[in-house]
Parts: sequence; C-alpha cells; structure tokens
Amino acid sequence: MMREIKIYSPATVSNIGCGFDTMGFALDEYCEEIVLRTSTNSGVRVVKITGDHGEIPYDNDQNTATKALLAFIEKHPIEFGLEIEIHKKMGLGSGLGSSAASAVSSVFGLNYLLGNPFDNNQLLLFALEGEKIASKATHADNVAPCLFGGFVLISSYEPLNIIKLPVPNDLYCAILHPQIEIKTSEARALLGDTIKLKNAVTQWGNVGGLVAGLYKSDYELIGKSIKDKVAEPLRSKLIPGYESIKESAYNAGAIGCNISGSGPAMFALSVTKEKAQKVAEAMKNACDKIDVENKIYVSSINQNGPLIKE
Amino acid sequence: MMREIKIYSPATVSNIGCGFDTMGFALDEYCEEIVLRTSTNSGVRVVKITGDHGEIPYDNDQNTATKALLAFIEKHPIEFGLEIEIHKKMGLGSGLGSSAASAVSSVFGLNYLLGNPFDNNQLLLFALEGEKIASKATHADNVAPCLFGGFVLISSYEPLNIIKLPVPNDLYCAILHPQIEIKTSEARALLGDTIKLKNAVTQWGNVGGLVAGLYKSDYELIGKSIKDKVAEPLRSKLIPGYESIKESAYNAGAIGCNISGSGPAMFALSVTKEKAQKVAEAMKNACDKIDVENKIYVSSINQNGPLIKE
Repeated sequence: MMREIKIYSPATVSNIGCGFDTMGFALDEYCEEIVLRTSTNSGVRVVKITGDHGEIPYDNDQNTATKALLAFIEKHPIEFGLEIEIHKKMGLGSGLGSSAASAVSSVFGLNYLLGNPFDNNQLLLFALEGEKIASKATHADNVAPCLFGGFVLISSYEPLNIIKLPVPNDLYCAILHPQIEIKTSEARALLGDTIKLKNAVTQWGNVGGLVAGLYKSDYELIGKSIKDKVAEPLRSKLIPGYESIKESAYNAGAIGCNISGSGPAMFALSVTKEKAQKVAEAMKNACDKIDVENKIYVSSINQNGPLIKE
Repeated sequence: MMREIKIYSPATVSNIGCGFDTMGFALDEYCEEIVLRTSTNSGVRVVKITGDHGEIPYDNDQNTATKALLAFIEKHPIEFGLEIEIHKKMGLGSGLGSSAASAVSSVFGLNYLLGNPFDNNQLLLFALEGEKIASKATHADNVAPCLFGGFVLISSYEPLNIIKLPVPNDLYCAILHPQIEIKTSEARALLGDTIKLKNAVTQWGNVGGLVAGLYKSDYELIGKSIKDKVAEPLRSKLIPGYESIKESAYNAGAIGCNISGSGPAMFALSVTKEKAQKVAEAMKNACDKIDVENKIYVSSINQNGPLIKE
C-alpha cells in the first residue's frame, strides 16, 4: 500500500555566538516541506524540488536528503522505493540550517514510516551523513537541534554526545535573513586552523555562561554570553551592514545578537514575544537602510523537533 | 581593643580538566591557618611564617596575603595596624591554590573585622591583586572557588563575572600531592599563545558538558567532560608517573582525573566517599611505585568558602 507523509523540520540557529560547532537551537519556523512517498519501484529518488532552492542537486550522492536516507537504508534495508519532493521555504546558504533540515526530515520521515526502529541518537548519525555534503565538514550544531528541538549542546564529537538544555519560558528569537547567499563551506574556509589561547578562554567562559544561563533562566547571563571571538570577527564581513544591524537589535532591547550559523542570517534573542517583534523590525529597518533585500521572522523556541503530517 | 582571628581558606582545584582559567572548585581541606591580629602600630606586616612554606616572602609587595590586604585598605582605609601569621599546611607550588588561599584569607578576615563592608565580588578583586604576585597572571579560578566555595565558573574576566554552579551530593575528591614543586608562572610559560581550533571546539564542548553535568547531577557526563587538550598534554610531563597515576585512578573507579591547577597535585572525582578513598589509595600506590614522596587527601566539596575562628 502506498503511503505519503509530509515532514516539517525546524530552522535552526547554530553556534549561538560562543558555541562554534557545539551549540544550536531550533525555531518554530520550518525550512521546507518534504514529501516522502513510498513506491513499488525500488530505490530512492528526488522527483521534485520547488521554492527558494538555489542549486540543490537531484543526484542522490549530492543531495543532503537522499544522502542521509542512503545512510539509513544501509543500516536498515527497506523493501519499497521512496520518492521525495522538496519544497524549500528557506534556501540553502541562509545560515538557518536548511541543509540540515532536509537531512533530518528525510530520515525522521522514513523512521516514522517503518514504525520508529531507530532513536534520535541513531537518526542523528544518518542525518550527519547528509549534512556533510552541504558543509564539507561534520558539524552537528544544526542537525542536532533540528532533530531534538530546543537548545542543544554537542558536548563531544568522538563519540557524539548530545545534551538537551532547558528552554527558558520567555525567550523569543528574531531572525533577519538578508537575501544573499553565503556557502557554509566558504564561510568555514575563512576560519584559520588556530586561535589565540586568550580568545579560547573567553569563548569557553561564555559557553559555560550560556549553559548555566539556560539552566538558571538567567536572561542577563544568557545575553552576556552570546559573544564570539572566533567566527564573528571574520564572517561578519560577509554580511552587509552587520554592525549597524546588530546595534539596532541591542538598541531595540535584544539580550544577545550574533550571526546565525555561517550567515548571512542574524539572530537576536529577546525576553517576550513583543520585544522580539520590536527587535526584528529594528533589524529590518537597519537592513533596509543599506538597500539589502531581507526577510524577518519572529519565533518561539521549537521544543519538539520535526513535525509529521500524514 | 586588640582583636585576633584565625582564618581557614579551602584548598582549590582549578581548571577541572576542561576549564582552563575559567573553572574551579573548593575542597574541605585547608591550605593554612592565617592569624590576623589588630595592632596599635599602623601598617600591615607579616610577623611569622611556619610550615611547608617554601619561599614565601615577608615583603608586603611580594607576599600574596599582604598585597591583597593593601588593595583592600586602599579602597577602605583602616585606623589600626595588622599583624599576620601564616602557618602553611599545603605549600606554594602544589597546584592546590595555596597562594590564592592566603590572598582570600587575609581580605576575608579583614572584612570580617570591619563588619563586612564588602561583598564577595568586591573581595575577589582585592584577592586577585595578591594572586597576581604568585602566578604572574590574573586568573581567578583558584581565588573565586576559594572565596565562594563550591564549583565556580568565571564566565567573563572583563568585567569579572562569577557563577556558582550546583554541587552534586555524592561527589568526592581524591587528591594526590607529589612532594615536588611546580611554579605556577613556569607552568604557564609552557603554554603557547595559540591553540588549534579543533582542540578549542573540543574544549568548549567539554566546558558546556561539565556545567550541564553539574546542573543535572549527571556523574557520567561530569566525568566524560573532565578532559583537557590545552594544558594537560604539556604540563603532565612535569609530573613524574602522570599517566600511570591517572590510569590507576580510573581503574579504581574515578569518574574524572586530571591535573589540579598547574600541578603537581592531581585530582580525581568519584561518586561516594568510599570510592574516593579507594581512588586516593590507588593513586598513592602508583606514585609510591616510582619512588616519589606524596600525600593524599580525600575531601568533600567545600560549599562555604573560608572559615573564621575568633
């Protein structure tokens, strides 16, 4: 019997300023709709891609969704074929975890179709195989929050260890997405292989502060900890008007503002939805002033991971 | 009227593996007894130093206790003189925060004599002035836990921001103190100015993991997070038999083991006091085997900071 489901995986903010490659959180905004349809023709294939999709390839080995599915199927062979439609809302290269969302949606969806043989920790490994294609590096700070929801710490990569952190009640996120593309792989290439020990110490003080702030629901501490000595100084140069947009967010009452992932999207955390709305508008105004087309989102923190509709 | 008090400040374990310069905890073992006595002769002077005191100078500008007191008095002039006796139990260069304890004891004691005009955050700044003398660097990861008690995170140095972290109930610490001296300033000089980004990422994952582990009382996560890519690989070479002692701690059931501060003392955390006792003995045996004189301690986590007896 043919089955068809739709999967909606959250957009995610990785790094959160201080936690390069180790922290991220999920938004109640979805990157795309993925349709997964069983088929009597064996094999996996992308049959349709629509929306703001840039250069998403149909080739199974180059597509994050199918690459993740193939990793899943290698561990758990299936007796039916799969057709996939990808309807993008937030494009690749946004800094909002769009490629991670595709990888997560596909394996989360297949797992659902099979009656959930795998838990999230196992699905994460499959999704990472897809994510690798997009970023040319294994980093889990989008796929993990996308799959688990909420705030996530990757405390270790070898072996992979994911820790869900508490989500303070009144935290809302404003996103400014300038309509330019920054490829994750290029943004990563900007970073050197070494950093100053002094900056590293500052950074791990902030990581500790952010984790503690989330446990304590201490908004001041959360805000103070959202700083970056590693990627922001280099990557912010790729985002037109970065400093003025950031300043406008703080002036409007944001507790913390930084680059989302490798950009160009920027995020700002605020206490209460009303404040986040004000902050989003201030960021938009600052971006409009320099004539860069942009979109804004105001979102609560997604606590559930992907959503499935049958 | 002449007054005399005795102050006992806890020995401290800084770095805790992953948190170089940003984390530390206090032990229910005291580094020394400090006697503070008011005097009608104005000025501050060290009148006696006993015990395992190495090269502690009497000169006010070179002594961590008096240097810290002078910083205090500069902000809050006093109308009496002060005589100080320092009776060391754990010497300088132990890696157990002996110099920090002297700095903390002196300002904590004077504050007490004056009816506590300053809070701990202010006292910390005075104590740091003393600590600087010993380590040739401003690092608060001994003075802060010594003064505040418990597990402490220094989330920021500019401005200084101290966060007390929860202390899980069943956590006990074994200390092995090989009777050799490593000067903090020399141990610091071993470290380069830069570290690999890859190692920095590992390190802040572990800092986040340790903070989360303390909030969750997750002993497995605490243990897994006590790792160090920055100082341990370089500093462990200064400690005879380091690897075999560490291995013996884990074999005896320690959840985490690393260098205490800049060494030579080593710490191992265990769940339950009985386990910590077993771990301490295993570490002692390993150290005895290579004919290095040593002392061991088994301690609960000090949650109160300095103790005053009048």
